[in-house]
Amino acid sequence: MKIISTQQDDFKEEFDSILARAKTDIKGVSAIVTDIINEIIEEKNEALKRHISKFDKWEVKSDDELLISKEDMKQAYENINDDLKKALHTAYDRIKAYHEKQLPKSWIDFEKNGTILGQKVSAVDKAGLYIPGGKAAYPSSLLMNAIPAIVAGVEEIVVCTPTPNNEVNELLLAACHICNISKAFKIGGASAIAAMAYGTQTIPKVDVITGPGNIFVATAKKLVFGEVNIDMIAGPSEIGILSDKSAKPKYLAIDLLSQAEHDEMASSIMITISEEVAIQTSMEVDNYLKTLSRKEIASKSINDRGAIIIAKDMDEACDLMNEIAPEHLEIMTENPFELLSKVKHAGAIFLGENTPEPIGDYIAGPNHTLPTGSTAKFYSPLNVENFMKKSSIINFSSKAIDELGEACAILADTEGLTAHAKSVRVRLKREK
Amino acid sequence: MKIISTQQDDFKEEFDSILARAKTDIKGVSAIVTDIINEIIEEKNEALKRHISKFDKWEVKSDDELLISKEDMKQAYENINDDLKKALHTAYDRIKAYHEKQLPKSWIDFEKNGTILGQKVSAVDKAGLYIPGGKAAYPSSLLMNAIPAIVAGVEEIVVCTPTPNNEVNELLLAACHICNISKAFKIGGASAIAAMAYGTQTIPKVDVITGPGNIFVATAKKLVFGEVNIDMIAGPSEIGILSDKSAKPKYLAIDLLSQAEHDEMASSIMITISEEVAIQTSMEVDNYLKTLSRKEIASKSINDRGAIIIAKDMDEACDLMNEIAPEHLEIMTENPFELLSKVKHAGAIFLGENTPEPIGDYIAGPNHTLPTGSTAKFYSPLNVENFMKKSSIINFSSKAIDELGEACAILADTEGLTAHAKSVRVRLKREK
Repeated sequence: MKIISTQQDDFKEEFDSILARAKTDIKGVSAIVTDIINEIIEEKNEALKRHISKFDKWEVKSDDELLISKEDMKQAYENINDDLKKALHTAYDRIKAYHEKQLPKSWIDFEKNGTILGQKVSAVDKAGLYIPGGKAAYPSSLLMNAIPAIVAGVEEIVVCTPTPNNEVNELLLAACHICNISKAFKIGGASAIAAMAYGTQTIPKVDVITGPGNIFVATAKKLVFGEVNIDMIAGPSEIGILSDKSAKPKYLAIDLLSQAEHDEMASSIMITISEEVAIQTSMEVDNYLKTLSRKEIASKSINDRGAIIIAKDMDEACDLMNEIAPEHLEIMTENPFELLSKVKHAGAIFLGENTPEPIGDYIAGPNHTLPTGSTAKFYSPLNVENFMKKSSIINFSSKAIDELGEACAILADTEGLTAHAKSVRVRLKREK
Repeated sequence: MKIISTQQDDFKEEFDSILARAKTDIKGVSAIVTDIINEIIEEKNEALKRHISKFDKWEVKSDDELLISKEDMKQAYENINDDLKKALHTAYDRIKAYHEKQLPKSWIDFEKNGTILGQKVSAVDKAGLYIPGGKAAYPSSLLMNAIPAIVAGVEEIVVCTPTPNNEVNELLLAACHICNISKAFKIGGASAIAAMAYGTQTIPKVDVITGPGNIFVATAKKLVFGEVNIDMIAGPSEIGILSDKSAKPKYLAIDLLSQAEHDEMASSIMITISEEVAIQTSMEVDNYLKTLSRKEIASKSINDRGAIIIAKDMDEACDLMNEIAPEHLEIMTENPFELLSKVKHAGAIFLGENTPEPIGDYIAGPNHTLPTGSTAKFYSPLNVENFMKKSSIINFSSKAIDELGEACAILADTEGLTAHAKSVRVRLKREK
């Protein structure tokens, strides 16, 4: 695995190429996705059926066939072994407990002059979850998207997932059963996003769409943004690790590889202040690589997009990591908590040697849907507020409008909005 | 003003046309805006100068001329009269106090087995505020966009505003002085959005862009979403009023008109359970219309997009209003608070006869940047969290990973991610 130093002459170029890691460039697919969305808007279920025939290679004979039955979900759940069942329930309980702590409260506040101001927080009516199918059909994705919506109090939660050859992933079905999903549909890709954004005879129009997907799904989410809300536009997975000499190279190596095995486009970057740890970790990566079931993917990711950077001190290391703003950040140092204030941008922060990133993918509790490609500078992990919205509450007493009304009218006049000013002044004059 | 009843035969068609009120259709301008954005990405300041020459009709001779000086802001502030100064400061203080109550806290939580989970909330580094110029250059827009960013703790706040013929709106400058804006630039439209999203030699790349604008600005914001975060995609302004027989027709009429005067595309809808109030309000609207300075705009808005709906009871009225999900909602009934739980979707809710909507535009405290066109079903008013982001915090003890690690590894195995499983199991075995 490549080792570079912040002291070498061409460090800036090397680091810029890390910063320029895979961004989702939607130019190439925008036109295709726009066509797909327009077909769904115009032809609804008819277009859905045509897209399923084309992409998933099966024929939908009646609209009912689009729906996955609750009975199938229950059956799939009963078919899985007890250890897995228990693991899924543990994950469900812990994810739920964490997200419950995020739940914002409505509030109200009173002023002496009788003014009441507040903020009402409430769930959206309907949420749509997109869950990829085929080889990337992860039951954990269903848990991580459904549970924040459940905790937010969303009344209707809809799932769309592609079913190539009309085969539904059993594990996904089992997770749907655990989350008590009532409406799941056999439709994937941009068609699914369009169907949930605009509604069809079978699939309800929702208010918010979340969930991972390929470039077609990501592009569709961007294009329907405004018609519905979306969580974020996510790219390939990535990890950043900050380490010092106290860190164990074996742990660091397998953690770097656990991102790399996701995707050839995934990126695994460690910044360390120990040359010894850098060298040892690089060797351990090579050792592990030989044994991994997904070694081809992981090798390509590590070779093309991986790097170990040796920094002169931890301040420099943190500054560089803030520029990267990684999706996952492991802090593997002697006192990881002391770096928490220096780390400004990261989706999820894993502290200390007993906290490998996969713990956060499945079981810790926080969401695994995280901002990628430096967007942790402005996006948050998927959370209950993605499924909620706020309304301001304003109540003025007659005393309050007497105190503040004229200032308000002056500002309205200044902006040339005379009806605005008048609507205040008729109150000041108590006109009947 | 048109009065319709929920009991009439064609009510559904009438109501559907209300629901289909102006949505921002960006198809027509997407290609133009995409070109503008690409020019800014490729040519940076050179493109900015060309666009200023074309749209704002003045020639930028050096890059420095793009910047509005702090001295000019101070001078503009000193030039305004004392009443306006006082009104602006009152507005600033009240908006600031309200937004401070929204400020989310980072939190941390401890489990018996030593697990520590939390959520760090922090401000983005840089925010860009777009403020329209010319006739719609509202100092209140600057206050409403800048103050949430200030309260969030954003270190660098940048303002872009168009300056036709190189003339800056003095009131806007005064508001910039009050908000202590250090960097304001003379650039408007899609060019300004692109410049703040990608950065130029003069204008910094920001993390979040907020602020109102025409269809070119709205389209540019949608297109750069993902490269930066944005607040929302806003359309024409609108008001919904719920009223019963206790409401004063004069107040209702001028409140409907205060939305109508914004824009011919604005929409003013009242749903009342009193036929008497419906008829009286319609007459008062006609009376007021004769006297308004912006009567041509207001008349067109009221005629094309205004309506008074007579509902059979308040439950029906609330259900209809929830479908409309208006930007502004006034509840002008005998006991407005009792409807707060029935009202599910609205940007801001104004309660009682002393709380006309313009109070919320300027002085009450809550933000006046609100979701339009039914998007209150999923968007929130502009708030401090638009300028903040979260990071999950995870710390497992050795006891915690012993308890939960195997369940995590089982889930990773199930999903075929063996490096994930291994990264947990090397810890369980305490491999060195």
